Amino acid sequence: MDNPVTRVAYPEPVMACRTVFFVSDQTGVTSETLGRSLLTQFEDHEFKQITVPFIDSIDKATEVVGQINAVARSEGVRPIIFSTLVQDELRAPFANASGLFLDFFATFLVPLELELQVKPSRTVGRAHGLTDIYAYDKRIDATNYALNYDDGGRVGDYDKADIILVGVSRSGKTPTCLYLAMSYGVFAANYPLAEDELEDGRLPEVIAPFRDKLFGLTIQPARLRQIRKERRPTGRYASTQQVRFELRAAEAMFRRYQIPFVDTTHVSVEEIASTILNSTGIERRVRP
Amino acid sequence: MDNPVTRVAYPEPVMACRTVFFVSDQTGVTSETLGRSLLTQFEDHEFKQITVPFIDSIDKATEVVGQINAVARSEGVRPIIFSTLVQDELRAPFANASGLFLDFFATFLVPLELELQVKPSRTVGRAHGLTDIYAYDKRIDATNYALNYDDGGRVGDYDKADIILVGVSRSGKTPTCLYLAMSYGVFAANYPLAEDELEDGRLPEVIAPFRDKLFGLTIQPARLRQIRKERRPTGRYASTQQVRFELRAAEAMFRRYQIPFVDTTHVSVEEIASTILNSTGIERRVRP
Repeated sequence: MDNPVTRVAYPEPVMACRTVFFVSDQTGVTSETLGRSLLTQFEDHEFKQITVPFIDSIDKATEVVGQINAVARSEGVRPIIFSTLVQDELRAPFANASGLFLDFFATFLVPLELELQVKPSRTVGRAHGLTDIYAYDKRIDATNYALNYDDGGRVGDYDKADIILVGVSRSGKTPTCLYLAMSYGVFAANYPLAEDELEDGRLPEVIAPFRDKLFGLTIQPARLRQIRKERRPTGRYASTQQVRFELRAAEAMFRRYQIPFVDTTHVSVEEIASTILNSTGIERRVRP
Repeated sequence: MDNPVTRVAYPEPVMACRTVFFVSDQTGVTSETLGRSLLTQFEDHEFKQITVPFIDSIDKATEVVGQINAVARSEGVRPIIFSTLVQDELRAPFANASGLFLDFFATFLVPLELELQVKPSRTVGRAHGLTDIYAYDKRIDATNYALNYDDGGRVGDYDKADIILVGVSRSGKTPTCLYLAMSYGVFAANYPLAEDELEDGRLPEVIAPFRDKLFGLTIQPARLRQIRKERRPTGRYASTQQVRFELRAAEAMFRRYQIPFVDTTHVSVEEIASTILNSTGIERRVRP
């Protein structure tokens, strides 16, 4: 057994806290995404996160550096700076800031330039800007499509669909369709399985001609009850019996018609979307 | 004048093409975001992009490396590999692949570890997984909110809204609300300005009590006509006169009531969202 005196002598571990700046000459989306993926590797730290987008002048850069230095002084530890700044003159002030400067562009642009044997354009903010109007329109078209074909809103005309998600109410179809549209420009419709269709067990007539495009979503009964209860606290909709019947019938239908399906209980919308694209081979029209 | 003979002697420049792999032990979203932000700096190159998510075993890694080496042989140039693989044993095979290996985690995790004085967890796929159920539920709640309060679908109960986007039909309200919800967990409603409200010129009664939450979207007439024509090719809806009247009236209303607004013509949804968050100071509940 440990010596209790020794144990008492150590203070309780205090959750360490650090301020993080995401700096960018554009939206800050790339900086946030990259920074966040690194920060999640340090679970025991708390991070106070500040995004500073649209840094487009040396004055603005100098102002933000002043803010970073002030945080360093007041907190006694230097902040972490995730940067996707492209232009050298805007990056320079940050390299001398009182912070750990993690510079995504400078780090990888040089080896890429050497490999491709061509100078990068060093143009500000190309990643999430409106540089490729074709790709952008595709995303918006796909988003409008997802909204129009949500929840079986329009049925019977799924020719344009890349994929049709099928499942019971609140199994995750709508957010997944929207994410597929906004991130990848994929045209995703969804069709909710109604009670009579589940009782019948046959593939509903409106989706039957599009069997190759169907992908099923299922979810564990306890989680579905929880989600449905938030929507309608009382009644059959969220009852154990109803939820179990619907899910069992839906999964039986998926198996009967060899519709691939995924359990959404413990996975995020990003993971569902990636799983669908990976297993169907549907082409991404754009990338996030 | 140039010598025509000399000009003919040079062959037309051929668009260089390179295959790019985004490899990940999870969704591949971070890897794609990183890669895309760098690739957009090389405009004259074409990139054939392949995402390989869910690499969770040495066998799988070795298989993908085989695929990369085959591409290198058949194309005569080595592919570029953007990796967000976290675990050393899965990364190792790629380091020896016939490709330019750009290793996001190895590059940035070490300086972060030294700075924070703590070992990273090296856990697979934390960035876009369901690790923070609170944050995840917020995003889904916000997405459902955006859908319910889209296009003035429900009005008069905007207490929960962080922001209410106001503008004429097809000015970009819906995609922006959805993006704010899915990426940042921000509760965004939107209210379309109807013709009689625009003629009247006064702030509509249902949104007047929430003036602090209003943010306007406008767009240039030519672009709006183009967008509306795709929806309804004929009729007043997309006519020059109608579009001009609506936009002029909407902007006059924004000015009269000091509602901040942004022109969405040349900017992406990400840029509109970033601009709104940056200028209002609305807190991001989650980050992409």
